[in-house]
Amino acid sequence: MFSKFTDDDFRYFEKLLPGRALRGNTINEDYYHDELGTAFGVPDVLVKVLCTQDVSQVMKYASERNLPVVVRGSGTGLVGGAVAICGGIMLDTSLMKKVLELDENNLTVTVQSGILLMELASYCEERGFRYCPDPGEKSATIGGNISTNAGGMRAMKYGVTRDSVRSLTAVLPSGEIMQFGSKVVKNSSGYDLKDLIIGSEGTLAVVTEATLKIIPKPEHSISILVPFQSMRDAISTVPKIIRAQVTPVATEYMSQDVILFAEEYLGKKFPTHDSDAYLLLTFDGNTREAVMHDMETIAELCLENDAIDVYMIDTEERSASVWSARSAFLEAIKGSTDQMDECDVVVPRSLVADFILYTHEVAKKTGLRIPSFGHAGDGNLHIYLCRDGLDEKTWEERKDSAFDLMYARAREIGGLVSGEHGIGLDKRTYLRDALGERQLEIMRGIKNVFDPKGILNPGKVI
Amino acid sequence: MFSKFTDDDFRYFEKLLPGRALRGNTINEDYYHDELGTAFGVPDVLVKVLCTQDVSQVMKYASERNLPVVVRGSGTGLVGGAVAICGGIMLDTSLMKKVLELDENNLTVTVQSGILLMELASYCEERGFRYCPDPGEKSATIGGNISTNAGGMRAMKYGVTRDSVRSLTAVLPSGEIMQFGSKVVKNSSGYDLKDLIIGSEGTLAVVTEATLKIIPKPEHSISILVPFQSMRDAISTVPKIIRAQVTPVATEYMSQDVILFAEEYLGKKFPTHDSDAYLLLTFDGNTREAVMHDMETIAELCLENDAIDVYMIDTEERSASVWSARSAFLEAIKGSTDQMDECDVVVPRSLVADFILYTHEVAKKTGLRIPSFGHAGDGNLHIYLCRDGLDEKTWEERKDSAFDLMYARAREIGGLVSGEHGIGLDKRTYLRDALGERQLEIMRGIKNVFDPKGILNPGKVI
Repeated sequence: MFSKFTDDDFRYFEKLLPGRALRGNTINEDYYHDELGTAFGVPDVLVKVLCTQDVSQVMKYASERNLPVVVRGSGTGLVGGAVAICGGIMLDTSLMKKVLELDENNLTVTVQSGILLMELASYCEERGFRYCPDPGEKSATIGGNISTNAGGMRAMKYGVTRDSVRSLTAVLPSGEIMQFGSKVVKNSSGYDLKDLIIGSEGTLAVVTEATLKIIPKPEHSISILVPFQSMRDAISTVPKIIRAQVTPVATEYMSQDVILFAEEYLGKKFPTHDSDAYLLLTFDGNTREAVMHDMETIAELCLENDAIDVYMIDTEERSASVWSARSAFLEAIKGSTDQMDECDVVVPRSLVADFILYTHEVAKKTGLRIPSFGHAGDGNLHIYLCRDGLDEKTWEERKDSAFDLMYARAREIGGLVSGEHGIGLDKRTYLRDALGERQLEIMRGIKNVFDPKGILNPGKVI
Repeated sequence: MFSKFTDDDFRYFEKLLPGRALRGNTINEDYYHDELGTAFGVPDVLVKVLCTQDVSQVMKYASERNLPVVVRGSGTGLVGGAVAICGGIMLDTSLMKKVLELDENNLTVTVQSGILLMELASYCEERGFRYCPDPGEKSATIGGNISTNAGGMRAMKYGVTRDSVRSLTAVLPSGEIMQFGSKVVKNSSGYDLKDLIIGSEGTLAVVTEATLKIIPKPEHSISILVPFQSMRDAISTVPKIIRAQVTPVATEYMSQDVILFAEEYLGKKFPTHDSDAYLLLTFDGNTREAVMHDMETIAELCLENDAIDVYMIDTEERSASVWSARSAFLEAIKGSTDQMDECDVVVPRSLVADFILYTHEVAKKTGLRIPSFGHAGDGNLHIYLCRDGLDEKTWEERKDSAFDLMYARAREIGGLVSGEHGIGLDKRTYLRDALGERQLEIMRGIKNVFDPKGILNPGKVI
């Protein structure tokens, strides 16, 4: 077991990080939970680190004293990953915001892990570059994105966070500082530790810096919003789009109910909300002609597949309104109910429609309201179970039964538990069901290699 | 230590794999070494497996009997990775050639690991699809490509082998059959074991099947061959190309001497061989206009950067002649000397020219001939040390001294030991120098989790 946190421990941190070590009710209660608030835990101390060296010192001390450590960026997680369920040290990276290098020749940017996604995005865009991944939650830190291998809305063309990480500086539980990967673009030099750290949800090492791939900002971009009579019509068009020699940057699916929530939440009208189901597609490229050609190819294909219409999102204003609505879906659904929980399955892209229809069945079967939206181009769905005033016991029962049904179906059709939000505390049972005990045993063995004392984010993932 | 291989062991394999277990001088001597022949080892038994179940049985027996196992595809490796230096069992996957599924909706192809790269490529191309990675050695197996995370000539636009592997079926040293990853395109479900297996050179598990990403075959493609006055002129153009809002599929660097070897080796003329240095660039896309636009942008940029001329490779015949020459470089250099060894460093793309110039210095310093070529767009160079009739002792001394110099320089400038050929037996010292003892310790810990008896490809990588 872990040691009890003492006054001496606090004095050590106060001295190490003057003015940046807090405890008791000087810690804001936001630090007790994450965005969804399904898990709860009170850290004994909150330490705000500024650099890799700080993190190294904190970990060295924690390791010697056998104190648990939970790393936290913005706390925008949805599965209880960054909650201090065993108390101990909460290591807050949110002050580590520096851009350390922009390498225009090798097209990389090196940042500290606490920089927000929106800060990183504007830093790059202002200089004519783009950091490709575009998760909906712009106030997440890049460290948080790395810890769950976040995907986001440009994954279809540009890949997920993992695909944009060239190297990581990370601190082992022992306090040792390591460099995993390098600025180079190919690597066959020993086991792939970089990709093992990515997606490990702060259980193997503390990521403090990352060198990220950037691209020259595409010169031309256009989106279309395509209403369909039904969800099946919309979704069944996606495999055809994928086969059409054109790769949209994004292919997002949205249903009418979710759009209405977003309109209400933002107090802004969406360009259209009369149809049941929509695809929102974006295209980018080097020439206006090429982008228009791609867009027209897909617009025609949608119309051939029973789309009702095709709206060009060709003004800055329209684009901002549509994409701000898309980014607000999670918050908007949250605003529509008193409590919710989430299922972030990823399924083969050809089976997305079947899976959404299945969630409608689950909604009927369990009596829960279950709105959803998703990255149709990636097969990654975000499905929300809404409490809508149910009493605690009924809510827990219905929720468990709905999760059981949905994860079992995902497993049957070759899907996985999480596309981009991770396992954290809440999805561990489903991970075990999906991968089997033997794979979890391997993961535990790997955890033990990095963290023999088990102090880093204990109780999470595996 | 391992058990001694006995007659009983052989009888077991004879019964398990009738007609597919060989020993003594029925084993072709090609199995004693790989393509470069730097390492040597005689397996006690060669078993030719047909399916995952065969592999599972072989591994279960090997594990119980404590016999070492080396997996081998086509034996085209260059670092001694697939050589049975401890004797024991050589597990030959070259009969495992089946295509198990083509999923046109999810754009994946599932194959057994012994299929050759050229067989996989034509299977896909004949059906209107493309498996993107394109390593020079077309007679390598896909399993071999996965084991070293091979890159190849389309990595600049389409990534390396890792980027195209969605899931693996692999057999643990214990004989247990595991599925790592899934057909889905995003994943945040526990530690990334799939990417850990990729690039592990057959030391963690035996890959038996792979589900690979494919794309619709691009409709238009064109290459240009661009002669420059000097290597520095050629290479210093590459960062500008990377920044030019255009991503070529390939950006290959070649020098006059290597082209002349290839002409002699193939008995065919290259379109031009009068200049010191060349870039070979390919562009692809959905419309002829877009591809021509990309090509013209880069052609102009090359001419502004002192290119002597731009040759369009716009006929099937010309394209075949240029690319077959490019694919033959390794063989051609091999044909120009009695023995050679190779350095496969990868360096930041902006420092490729500096590194090549440094190899010229090393050639002078050591008195060795050191031709090179490379994937300039990826910073991955293939540098060859040629023996040219030197006596054994002089050759070994000069070779070691040249390797020491080159790997030390690569380390200094943020490069890595291997871009795509792996570590195997030959590059272990340089891997340790590059990563440090602590990272190797972590890798050994991970090896121990997968393979506690250490029977899988012992003595390699770490």
